[in-house]
Amino acid sequence: MTRKIGIIGLGHVGATLAHSMVLKHTCDHLVLIDTNEKKVKSDALDFCDMVANTGYPVHITVNDYAALQDADVVVSTLGNIELQANNTNDRFAELPFTSKQVVQVGRDLKASGFHGVLVVVTNPVDAVTQLYQQYTGLPKEQVIGTGTLLDTARMKRAVADRLQVNPASVSGYNLGEHGNSQFVAWSQVRVKGHAITDLFSQEELDAINYESLRGGHTVFFGKFYTNFGIAAAAQRLAEAVINDSHEEMPVSNYRPEYGTYLGYPAIVGRKGIVERIDLQLTEEEKEKLLHSAETIKENTRKGLEHA
Amino acid sequence: MTRKIGIIGLGHVGATLAHSMVLKHTCDHLVLIDTNEKKVKSDALDFCDMVANTGYPVHITVNDYAALQDADVVVSTLGNIELQANNTNDRFAELPFTSKQVVQVGRDLKASGFHGVLVVVTNPVDAVTQLYQQYTGLPKEQVIGTGTLLDTARMKRAVADRLQVNPASVSGYNLGEHGNSQFVAWSQVRVKGHAITDLFSQEELDAINYESLRGGHTVFFGKFYTNFGIAAAAQRLAEAVINDSHEEMPVSNYRPEYGTYLGYPAIVGRKGIVERIDLQLTEEEKEKLLHSAETIKENTRKGLEHA
Amino acid sequence: MTRKIGIIGLGHVGATLAHSMVLKHTCDHLVLIDTNEKKVKSDALDFCDMVANTGYPVHITVNDYAALQDADVVVSTLGNIELQANNTNDRFAELPFTSKQVVQVGRDLKASGFHGVLVVVTNPVDAVTQLYQQYTGLPKEQVIGTGTLLDTARMKRAVADRLQVNPASVSGYNLGEHGNSQFVAWSQVRVKGHAITDLFSQEELDAINYESLRGGHTVFFGKFYTNFGIAAAAQRLAEAVINDSHEEMPVSNYRPEYGTYLGYPAIVGRKGIVERIDLQLTEEEKEKLLHSAETIKENTRKGLEHA
Amino acid sequence: MTRKIGIIGLGHVGATLAHSMVLKHTCDHLVLIDTNEKKVKSDALDFCDMVANTGYPVHITVNDYAALQDADVVVSTLGNIELQANNTNDRFAELPFTSKQVVQVGRDLKASGFHGVLVVVTNPVDAVTQLYQQYTGLPKEQVIGTGTLLDTARMKRAVADRLQVNPASVSGYNLGEHGNSQFVAWSQVRVKGHAITDLFSQEELDAINYESLRGGHTVFFGKFYTNFGIAAAAQRLAEAVINDSHEEMPVSNYRPEYGTYLGYPAIVGRKGIVERIDLQLTEEEKEKLLHSAETIKENTRKGLEHA
Repeated sequence: MTRKIGIIGLGHVGATLAHSMVLKHTCDHLVLIDTNEKKVKSDALDFCDMVANTGYPVHITVNDYAALQDADVVVSTLGNIELQANNTNDRFAELPFTSKQVVQVGRDLKASGFHGVLVVVTNPVDAVTQLYQQYTGLPKEQVIGTGTLLDTARMKRAVADRLQVNPASVSGYNLGEHGNSQFVAWSQVRVKGHAITDLFSQEELDAINYESLRGGHTVFFGKFYTNFGIAAAAQRLAEAVINDSHEEMPVSNYRPEYGTYLGYPAIVGRKGIVERIDLQLTEEEKEKLLHSAETIKENTRKGLEHA
Repeated sequence: MTRKIGIIGLGHVGATLAHSMVLKHTCDHLVLIDTNEKKVKSDALDFCDMVANTGYPVHITVNDYAALQDADVVVSTLGNIELQANNTNDRFAELPFTSKQVVQVGRDLKASGFHGVLVVVTNPVDAVTQLYQQYTGLPKEQVIGTGTLLDTARMKRAVADRLQVNPASVSGYNLGEHGNSQFVAWSQVRVKGHAITDLFSQEELDAINYESLRGGHTVFFGKFYTNFGIAAAAQRLAEAVINDSHEEMPVSNYRPEYGTYLGYPAIVGRKGIVERIDLQLTEEEKEKLLHSAETIKENTRKGLEHA
Repeated sequence: MTRKIGIIGLGHVGATLAHSMVLKHTCDHLVLIDTNEKKVKSDALDFCDMVANTGYPVHITVNDYAALQDADVVVSTLGNIELQANNTNDRFAELPFTSKQVVQVGRDLKASGFHGVLVVVTNPVDAVTQLYQQYTGLPKEQVIGTGTLLDTARMKRAVADRLQVNPASVSGYNLGEHGNSQFVAWSQVRVKGHAITDLFSQEELDAINYESLRGGHTVFFGKFYTNFGIAAAAQRLAEAVINDSHEEMPVSNYRPEYGTYLGYPAIVGRKGIVERIDLQLTEEEKEKLLHSAETIKENTRKGLEHA
Repeated sequence: MTRKIGIIGLGHVGATLAHSMVLKHTCDHLVLIDTNEKKVKSDALDFCDMVANTGYPVHITVNDYAALQDADVVVSTLGNIELQANNTNDRFAELPFTSKQVVQVGRDLKASGFHGVLVVVTNPVDAVTQLYQQYTGLPKEQVIGTGTLLDTARMKRAVADRLQVNPASVSGYNLGEHGNSQFVAWSQVRVKGHAITDLFSQEELDAINYESLRGGHTVFFGKFYTNFGIAAAAQRLAEAVINDSHEEMPVSNYRPEYGTYLGYPAIVGRKGIVERIDLQLTEEEKEKLLHSAETIKENTRKGLEHA
């Protein structure tokens, strides 16, 4: 009956996600884990100070891996955002650092007996999701990265702004790496009953593609982190699991034909990836996706060498 | 028909409150104002990146006082939390700094034609609420500080923890300054059908009183700011206004018999303070409240001299 | 600032919709109107008995057209469902009866000075929406019928059941009359990254089409009314207006090329129909739509003759 | 992880409660049981037709007691409201009829292996709760009636109307039978910082007491059933269990000193009645409560004789 969710890493994203979960009463029991014990205890107490004014009960456990044994979902939001700031905003710049933490956290999760769904936000997310899968030993379906779910949201926002429509009324996806090699799969984007390619010139499509990729950079360089958009993506993904919603969404999931985790739509439910979708992409899109997969694999290899 | 809310100051509290309002869809139109234009624009874009995943539309205007002319509620969350860290955590340490900003913001609000309800979170909140009332020229009923609403939540949490009950099932209030001279009015606290004084020894009551006051310090020194608890208090107060809920809650409101704003229960609705409550306090409590009122007035005078 | 919604007709659908609005706190002020004064007063009091347990304030006005002058949205749910039961479930069987009420209500709304958006649920909805537009004198964009929004939901449910996916992850629409001449526009239905026609045989598509049309009949003959599905459709439509959400949804809107109101996707916002969509239908679909439009016009003419 | 709730009896109250649970997404899995199979299947399908427009997944099982084996909460809303209409609105008029059903349902629940919390709405609720406890063999703490939770809401509404305050800002309770022998325990009612007895004359208190008792009658005789207020009470009680909220609320729970179930405040959580409260009542209130307890026991005895 209890709904239990763990969040590992109470930085900007982790704390914002925990706030979202407390406000939306997504679970009964939150387990918060961070190497900065003072910070995570402070956040936990701060959340408890909300209850008298919101009325929703909140049970929080701090820094106890054993409490994750029966968690439904664990979200990894650990990272060191400063590494990106110093490295021209390539998310792979974080890999040598985060990979060490991820290996340890993966082992600790495995030792805890955790057998739910692991949602990965930690960057570079496609590589890190793979690492987690290896070190937790969980089935590939139960380890999911937020992938291009946020980039897709940014693409939809860019389209929606131009057409005065709700972003949720735009369908379609960004595919591939949650990073610089991703792209909008224009063949899949529809809005107002039309293929997007009927509505915009190639120049305009390029501008939207750029915005969906660089949207994160604009946010990033305004405050040197991003939190609200990515937390909303992670919240939605965690809800799809905990509610067994069987929603289709583009997330980082393992695609055997590419030999890597990458952003691609799937049906998400209580067991994690319930079904992989097969899109009918154009030849150009297939090439871009292959290139993006190669980039993920190459950068993962290099990043781990430097770790 | 449109529900419009302004937030002035997108620091830890302002950004957390804006996040809460976006998640709870408290309003249709958010106006965000901050002197750090890059930061506030970054936050605004980050909020827009949530929409495709939440489905709720968000309209955000940045740094435009004119847009506040027809706002229903404006919340002041500006401040410089580092000033507290350097000054033994006395909220009055912020006054010389914030008072200058508050005077300017008050004048800008007045010039905008804003005539809704101003909710003040900026510390020292009782003094700053008074300053805002003077410089905006709004009726006293339309300028409200969060006051001891957060301290009361902390008291209820401390009581609730001891009795294994929901904090919302504890009634009663902390009164006076949102600061070191506040106190729990034990004569008003009831839980499980009993006066709290029947359930705990004086020693234990002192411990609860200390926790409700120092709770903020524990949170503060863990991360050098507090945001979630105070944002939940401000959210509840803003909702009471925008929903015309006529809830009773302890907030900083002007009490003529004390000649100052201070934390004391009132009925809150669309017009702000709809009715002042009159409690039947013990003689000791009356003295403490008088002392707290004097402290607010004295510190306000001193703080403004140093401004 | 106040959000005011009127509901005319507190039968099964009207009462269920009001319940939904109270639970979701869609508005601050509900105006409930019904010719059975005892019933509507009873419902109003029953809603007020919810408040102590939900905490949300509810303001309700009963049977006062003058209170609709500044309403944001009015929903017409009046009707006499027994007329359908006696007439082989053709929604046009209600027209001779409801048309008389609709003319009077339209005039009363006009006299009240109401100038918001009128949402029509009353059957036969396409004909009644047109009548309301004529008698209120509101712009065509401000009078909207729920149309095939419910039928589309039924189609999505039928598709979703077969594919183990969330109905909200199915895109596409039922078009035309909210009645027996409607049809699923298969060219527009996509799910799991595929055109629906790639996934199902014609036989299976026919079965889904039948279910989406007859789904209502199954519900109807189980309890001799339908309320939950249609109330959810009306709730979503009213929310799109009051939140200015600019969502795309298939609703009954006036299409000049067909000379009638009928179910067809549009962008909905605060002003009602913000934009008409133009679909790229197949020739067969175009013919079906033309036929459905003719059916609506013919049945409307006949129904009014018998009124 | 799954949250499963059963509702037995899909009449006015059961269907309204199910609607509330679907709208608030209180659980993942609803089990609906009714002797009128056509009606309950119709309701189930009608709820599924909501999903495409609300986005929340709903899993519904119909008429399968075995599915209740691992339910968290089961709510009994069965009854025959027409029996009240013919019997001067005494809820005990339903006992000879409902007691037979209750015995059978109690046995079926026991046979299913259900071991969660049983919430009883069926009237006469205090008697029926006791019967359910006997026939299910569940611990007394796990069988709870809505009792005077609704009457208390009506009392708070009557007080709130007079004082222009939110009903949720009134504290206190109606005690005893959910029926004619109940009473407001004035010694416990506080509002705006005062004992209610300081604010109203005895005459006015009598009027409020009458309204809180007769409020149900006014609703009842306007539509010959009541549903919204009682469904909100049952929803809150079920949420307190499923969220383990440890809220205090007046519900029908077994009090050994009176030898019966009756309306009296208790702390409610996942295990049901987590703690019994002991109020400090006046002598007059103690006598009224004793009288109400005797009435419940006497009427239960008589009603069962006629069954």
